[in-house]
Amino acid sequence: MYAIGVDLGGTNLRIAAVDENGKLIEKLTTGTQVVKGRDHVIDDMTKAILEVKSRFGSGSSLAGIGIGVPGIIDMDSGMLRESPNLPGWNDYPVREEIERRLGTQVILENDANAAAMGETWLGAAKDCSSMLMYTLGTGVGGGVVLNGGIWHGMNGMAGELGHNNVEPEGHPCNCGSRGCLEQYASATAVVRMAREAIASGVKTELGSASEGGDSEFSARQVYQMSVQGDEVAQEIFRCVGRALGIAISDMVNALNVNMVVIGGGVSSAWESFAPTLFEELWKRSFVYAATAPEQPHSANRVKKTIITRALMGSDAGLYGAARLPMLK
Amino acid sequence: MYAIGVDLGGTNLRIAAVDENGKLIEKLTTGTQVVKGRDHVIDDMTKAILEVKSRFGSGSSLAGIGIGVPGIIDMDSGMLRESPNLPGWNDYPVREEIERRLGTQVILENDANAAAMGETWLGAAKDCSSMLMYTLGTGVGGGVVLNGGIWHGMNGMAGELGHNNVEPEGHPCNCGSRGCLEQYASATAVVRMAREAIASGVKTELGSASEGGDSEFSARQVYQMSVQGDEVAQEIFRCVGRALGIAISDMVNALNVNMVVIGGGVSSAWESFAPTLFEELWKRSFVYAATAPEQPHSANRVKKTIITRALMGSDAGLYGAARLPMLK
Repeated sequence: MYAIGVDLGGTNLRIAAVDENGKLIEKLTTGTQVVKGRDHVIDDMTKAILEVKSRFGSGSSLAGIGIGVPGIIDMDSGMLRESPNLPGWNDYPVREEIERRLGTQVILENDANAAAMGETWLGAAKDCSSMLMYTLGTGVGGGVVLNGGIWHGMNGMAGELGHNNVEPEGHPCNCGSRGCLEQYASATAVVRMAREAIASGVKTELGSASEGGDSEFSARQVYQMSVQGDEVAQEIFRCVGRALGIAISDMVNALNVNMVVIGGGVSSAWESFAPTLFEELWKRSFVYAATAPEQPHSANRVKKTIITRALMGSDAGLYGAARLPMLK
Repeated sequence: MYAIGVDLGGTNLRIAAVDENGKLIEKLTTGTQVVKGRDHVIDDMTKAILEVKSRFGSGSSLAGIGIGVPGIIDMDSGMLRESPNLPGWNDYPVREEIERRLGTQVILENDANAAAMGETWLGAAKDCSSMLMYTLGTGVGGGVVLNGGIWHGMNGMAGELGHNNVEPEGHPCNCGSRGCLEQYASATAVVRMAREAIASGVKTELGSASEGGDSEFSARQVYQMSVQGDEVAQEIFRCVGRALGIAISDMVNALNVNMVVIGGGVSSAWESFAPTLFEELWKRSFVYAATAPEQPHSANRVKKTIITRALMGSDAGLYGAARLPMLK
C-alpha cells in the first residue's frame, strides 16, 4: 500500500510516492509555473501525478492522493478562500477540477496543516497525539493536531496560529489586524525589522542583509550576523523569540498540548531566538511552567510540554500530504 | 437513568439530580463552610450526595456523579493543582477521598469546564460540536469543547482562556504573566479599573462602586453607572470588550469553532462591552470575518461563528457536572 503526496508551492511542485511506513518510494520535483496560470499548473500537476502512479501499475494499491496547497481551503467545497501565492485560484473549484482530470478523489489540505501532519507522522512530534506546529517562512503558517488528526474546525479554517495577537497596536498585518505573530516571526518580519533598525541609524552590519527580494535568504543573513555578534541582529531575534513566546503561551494555556514544533526557514535561527522564547514561556504560561520538562531539551515526553525544532525541513508537507489518505 | 451533579463553589455547595434529558429531578443548595477546612467540606458534600441518592432507592439507575470544583485538576491523580478559593486542598487526593467515602467512582472536573459542558448540553451552545466558553467572574474561567466533549489536553490543564495575553506589558496577573485577559475582563478587573479611574482624578460617579469586598457586586454597580451614561464606566466596559475581542480572535483563528459563549457575572454587562468586542473581532480575526453571520445575533448556526451570551447562568456548571457521567 502506498499514497501519493503533493506539495504545491509558489516556486516548486513536488510529488512523492510514500509507503505506509513513511518510506519514500519515488519523488519528483519540478518548478511551479504560476505565471502561466492556474489551468497550466493544474495540468502539470495532474500529469505528474499520473506519471508517478503509472509506474506502479497494479502491483501495489494506491491509498489515495493528498495535496498540500498554500492557502485557506473550504473543506466542504474544496475551493481556495485565500491564496496570496497562487493568484487567480480563489473561488475556483480546485479539488473538483483535479479530481475530474485524475478520475479519482483527492484530499486538499492547507500546506501548514500538511507539514504538521508530516512532523507528527515521522518527525519531531512522532507518536504525539496533540501538537501545534508553527512554520516560520515568508509568513507564519500554523497547524493544530489533536487526537492524532488535523483539527480543521467547522469549515477548515482552523490553525491560523500566525495571526495570534502579540502586540495589540503593533505592525499592520495583511489579515487586517495589527501585531500578529506573523509580523514579528516570519522571514519578512526579520527583514523588515532589519530595515527599520538601519533606518533608525543604529550601528550595524546589517545593510546588505536587508536588500534583495528573497526574504528567507535575507533573514538567513540576519541570522548569520547575529551569530557573528551583531547586536542589532541579536535584538531582532529576541523580538522573534518574544513574539513566539507570547503566542505559544496563549495556545499552551488553552490547549495543554504535548508538543509545539517550530519549522520553516526562520527556525534555523533557533539558537538566536529560543532563549527568549523559553524565558517568555516560563513567565507567561503557568500551564507550561507546571508541565515543562526539567531539561529544556529533555527526551522525556511523558506528560511534559516539549517545545522543539522541526526535523523534516521542507519535506514535512510532502510526507504529511501523503499521510492524509492513509488516515481516512 | 439519572446522574448527580455537584457544583462546589467557594460560597455555595449545590447538588442536583438530573435525568438524561436534562430535566431537574431534585436540587439541594447549602453553604460551603470552607473555613471549617477541607475534611469538613468533603464530609458535608458526601453526606448531601448520599442523601440525594438515597431518595431514589433502586427505582432508577444512577449513571454516575460529576463534581465541578474551582481549580486546576490533574486528571490522572484526581488532585487539585491550584485552587485559590479552596485553600488547603492542593496536592490532596480529593477524588480518591470522595470515592472512598461514597464507595463509588466520581468524575472531578474544573468548574469552568463543567459550565462549558452545561451550556453545550442545554444552553446557548446546544447541539454545537465545538465551542469555547469564557466565564467572567472574580477571575476569567475558560472551557474548550471539541467534538462534543471537554478538551482536557495532556493532563487536564487545558481551557485556561482567561490567561490569553491581550497586553504584553499590561497589568500583572496572579499567574505570573502580565496583561492576561483576566486582568481586563473579570469583575475584579472592572473594579480595579474603576479605582484607577477615580485615582486619576477624572470626573465620575463611580466612587461607591469601587468600594466593598464583593467584586461581582461592585462590577454590577459599574455596569449600572455605564447604562446611566457615566463615561468613565462606559470606557471601562470598552476595555472589557477590547480585551475579549483580542483573546477571542486568537482562539477563533486557531480553532475555527462554531460558537463562543460568554457567561459569568460580568456577562450581564453584555450591552456595554459587546459592541467593542465585535468591532475588534471583525478587525482582528479574518477567520471570524470570513465566517460571521450576516446578523450579529443571527440564529443561523450552520457554518457561522456565533459569539453569544450564556443562557444558563450559575446553573451551567451544575448541569454540566451531571452531564459528565452520562458521556463516559
